[in-house]
Amino acid sequence: MSGILFVISGPSGVGKSTVRKEVMKRCKGLRYSVSYTARTPRPGETNGVDYYFVSEGTFLEMRDQGEFIEWARVHGNLYGTSRRQMEEWLENGLDVILEIDVQGAMQVKMNYPQGIFIFIAPPSLKELGQRLRGRNTDEEEVILLRMTNAQSELQSIRDYDYLIVNDDLNRTMATFRAVIIAERCRIR
Amino acid sequence: MSGILFVISGPSGVGKSTVRKEVMKRCKGLRYSVSYTARTPRPGETNGVDYYFVSEGTFLEMRDQGEFIEWARVHGNLYGTSRRQMEEWLENGLDVILEIDVQGAMQVKMNYPQGIFIFIAPPSLKELGQRLRGRNTDEEEVILLRMTNAQSELQSIRDYDYLIVNDDLNRTMATFRAVIIAERCRIR
Repeated sequence: MSGILFVISGPSGVGKSTVRKEVMKRCKGLRYSVSYTARTPRPGETNGVDYYFVSEGTFLEMRDQGEFIEWARVHGNLYGTSRRQMEEWLENGLDVILEIDVQGAMQVKMNYPQGIFIFIAPPSLKELGQRLRGRNTDEEEVILLRMTNAQSELQSIRDYDYLIVNDDLNRTMATFRAVIIAERCRIR
Repeated sequence: MSGILFVISGPSGVGKSTVRKEVMKRCKGLRYSVSYTARTPRPGETNGVDYYFVSEGTFLEMRDQGEFIEWARVHGNLYGTSRRQMEEWLENGLDVILEIDVQGAMQVKMNYPQGIFIFIAPPSLKELGQRLRGRNTDEEEVILLRMTNAQSELQSIRDYDYLIVNDDLNRTMATFRAVIIAERCRIR
């Protein structure tokens, strides 16, 4: 029996990681596929937990050897998802969560159209800007880049299966969890 | 904006009504479309709440005037769902629950393929038999008829969107609720 692949996207700062981490505490049998990145860690980020931090050289080599099921350059930084780990889990009937950007998600969708694609959106772009500034980890220039990207990512919502508007963290977690429970009893 | 149509089926005695009633207490914005039937009320059943109890003559007249979106003879008794009430709710953006047998559900699916079809199954046929006998409302002959029908209904699971196995009432209600929450944020 094959596991279910859940793919979450949403603009930077929307709260994807928080939601994903909390839901994983409450839902058994979910595996999170840690992404690779060639960017430098942000304060508080741990190698092997938040990302595998590798050099640009290593990243490009992995990419050229087909080790990524998806990869993308987002806000100028490289991100990718290892194919091997994810496929092993799915084959063993474990459900897998990927947390990736819209470009990456659409690459995954080409190979795994049966995946469940969830978009987490901010209540408004204005609120997203406030959250990004409140996070205090990025220069204003980077924040503006993230906002511009957010605007274009929101256009892709129609390519997803579910839209969760993160206006209240507890409600968002409950909704995300409901999607997982529902998809587990969906007849395929 | 149009509401979502949820259709629940499952063998007699599986606990459909209990689950549906409990979920309706916890989920706002759900309307239950009370079915019409030409059978006599069982102990505890109230006209207008559990069913609209009408004579066979009235039922057949309504049927011939196209007032039912679905109708079926189940265990020898006539059941039908009024089209008008259901459509009015859906048009007003309210989500509607129908609790109908497999034949009726498939008639509805022809007209509302966008409906969400949920099958509630017993953990086993043996357990279903125990529940039907425990209910103490039916003759052994009727129970055997229900069991035979259950067996053939289980063949139709593949025509449904979700399968919920009612092995634990609380879990079944939580799963049903999760399906409703998830479908409400599904992108259509």
